Amino acid sequence: METTKGNFITLSEAAEFLKAKDNFVILTHQNPDGDTLGSGFGLAMLLDKMGKKATVICPDEFPEKYSYFTSLAPQNADFNQKTTVVAVDVADSKLLGKLEAEYASRVELCIDHHVSNIGYAAATYLDSDAAANCECIYDLAKALSVEIDKNLALALYTGISTDTGCFRFSNTTAKTHRIGADLIELGIDTAEINRIMFETKSRIRVELERMALEAMEFYFEDKCAVITVTREMYEKTGCKDEDLEGITSISRSIEGVMVGVTLRERLEGGFKISVRTYPPIDASEICKRVGGGGHIRAAGCQLSAEFTAEQARAEILKAVKAVMEENLAGTVTDK
Amino acid sequence: METTKGNFITLSEAAEFLKAKDNFVILTHQNPDGDTLGSGFGLAMLLDKMGKKATVICPDEFPEKYSYFTSLAPQNADFNQKTTVVAVDVADSKLLGKLEAEYASRVELCIDHHVSNIGYAAATYLDSDAAANCECIYDLAKALSVEIDKNLALALYTGISTDTGCFRFSNTTAKTHRIGADLIELGIDTAEINRIMFETKSRIRVELERMALEAMEFYFEDKCAVITVTREMYEKTGCKDEDLEGITSISRSIEGVMVGVTLRERLEGGFKISVRTYPPIDASEICKRVGGGGHIRAAGCQLSAEFTAEQARAEILKAVKAVMEENLAGTVTDK
Repeated sequence: METTKGNFITLSEAAEFLKAKDNFVILTHQNPDGDTLGSGFGLAMLLDKMGKKATVICPDEFPEKYSYFTSLAPQNADFNQKTTVVAVDVADSKLLGKLEAEYASRVELCIDHHVSNIGYAAATYLDSDAAANCECIYDLAKALSVEIDKNLALALYTGISTDTGCFRFSNTTAKTHRIGADLIELGIDTAEINRIMFETKSRIRVELERMALEAMEFYFEDKCAVITVTREMYEKTGCKDEDLEGITSISRSIEGVMVGVTLRERLEGGFKISVRTYPPIDASEICKRVGGGGHIRAAGCQLSAEFTAEQARAEILKAVKAVMEENLAGTVTDK
Repeated sequence: METTKGNFITLSEAAEFLKAKDNFVILTHQNPDGDTLGSGFGLAMLLDKMGKKATVICPDEFPEKYSYFTSLAPQNADFNQKTTVVAVDVADSKLLGKLEAEYASRVELCIDHHVSNIGYAAATYLDSDAAANCECIYDLAKALSVEIDKNLALALYTGISTDTGCFRFSNTTAKTHRIGADLIELGIDTAEINRIMFETKSRIRVELERMALEAMEFYFEDKCAVITVTREMYEKTGCKDEDLEGITSISRSIEGVMVGVTLRERLEGGFKISVRTYPPIDASEICKRVGGGGHIRAAGCQLSAEFTAEQARAEILKAVKAVMEENLAGTVTDK
């Protein structure tokens, strides 16, 4: 198959490509999640069933919690022979991290579901309607008439469940559920997968949540909740930036709260501010007033080291109040 | 149709019964949840499409958060005429609360999915394979050839999602997902439903979680986490017993924890103790040693007012340690 950069191909063309090759290296993205790993190891299992060789690689280590399926795929690419490089769930070659230099220009096929895919691969099979990239691997298995077994179901279900928040987010489609139904019928223990994926928190995360809840303050008739994460909290808990993901959603999840604000003190000084809102409040409008921007429900801005925590909070609250008054078409009282 | 107590009937018999009557009172269970309300109002919508009259009643108030579908069903039973009484998702007439005296002996049809249904109704359509009772209402709509529209889909999806933890729990089947797919195709905003159902916490609950996390202690190489909820905490937060549901699962959700214990000081003195475990630890074995019992993963016991919080904790920890040593076949160190 002749391909050029930014060449988007069909499902059956992608299937033909896989059929024609025998020895694969499969690339997954940095900070690997359930969907890139489910896609990578799922594809490796699929290729194994076709009598081909494959090894999955990643710029970062494979997290232990996915081992219930990552340990099931044979990793047997022959690196002494020419390998065919396939990337899964990697929208941009930058996401290959430390593997970028070696592999970015060698990706022959990219299988992805991100509408933002930059077309860095020689050929890209993109299904931006797929809630998870694992839906694309499922479709490939069907197109290649490869029987999906229990091991493959574990990999694919994991990707689908993690990328949709267990069928909770708006990307979930009827097709997502129908694939979920097919995979459950293979006898996998989905409750156990979901327990591992969603119900297990690190001690550090729990400690951080406790501190965040403790530090939470309410403003404007309790319609705005503010969490301030200070450097001291970082140091006390030993948490990393990734442990902080999702902290912002805690404040917005409280009954009656329309604006959730998180201020994170940066190690180099100053504050990183995240704003999450519910209709009709425009988060990007709030952040624009403090020099930032973003989307209508999720936006951000930064304040320099000149600001104390108190000043930073006052600054963002001024913007919150102004936008609330605009969007709610009325006066907002301070407490 | 002639029916007797404990008379379990088929889907098509239940459908025929509904066809034959015209004026319905639909009973939902006390402390109404998404599934009893989705079933009740869903059935009311279904009957309305068949040109019949129906009103949904409940021993408790309908919670406001379900109004996006409860407000859509006509409530037009004619109480001046003879009404046909149907109960949905009510496994035992005791769950009718203050409606029990008036209605328990008058239930002509019970539509339920609890294997524990005591057969109190004149006729019971029971599908214990259904993850949610709303699956039964869906099946009835199909059996009656009633078209499911967007409003009905809102009601049924809510019941299915809430009873399965959004397709997360082990009761979720392939059929559950296929129904989910059909309902999504009707254009309902499932992400918004799930936000209302799962992402909104009361201020009291948040405050309680904060206190519980603060009070959490770890034992036995951090494999056991203990939360003690004191009377003081109740009073400080103004929380009720129902606000405490799920607190026990917090401790078990922490990485590495195999036994989660919650001690709740009772207003009348003494402690109610809940134990949740992961394999291979047997929760019922732990609670038996303190005079309680339960299931292998979830059990409970009580300690009288003679015990201080410290003594109660020591008592249950002794049992935890003994069972851990047995089940893990080794010595467990204290800290």
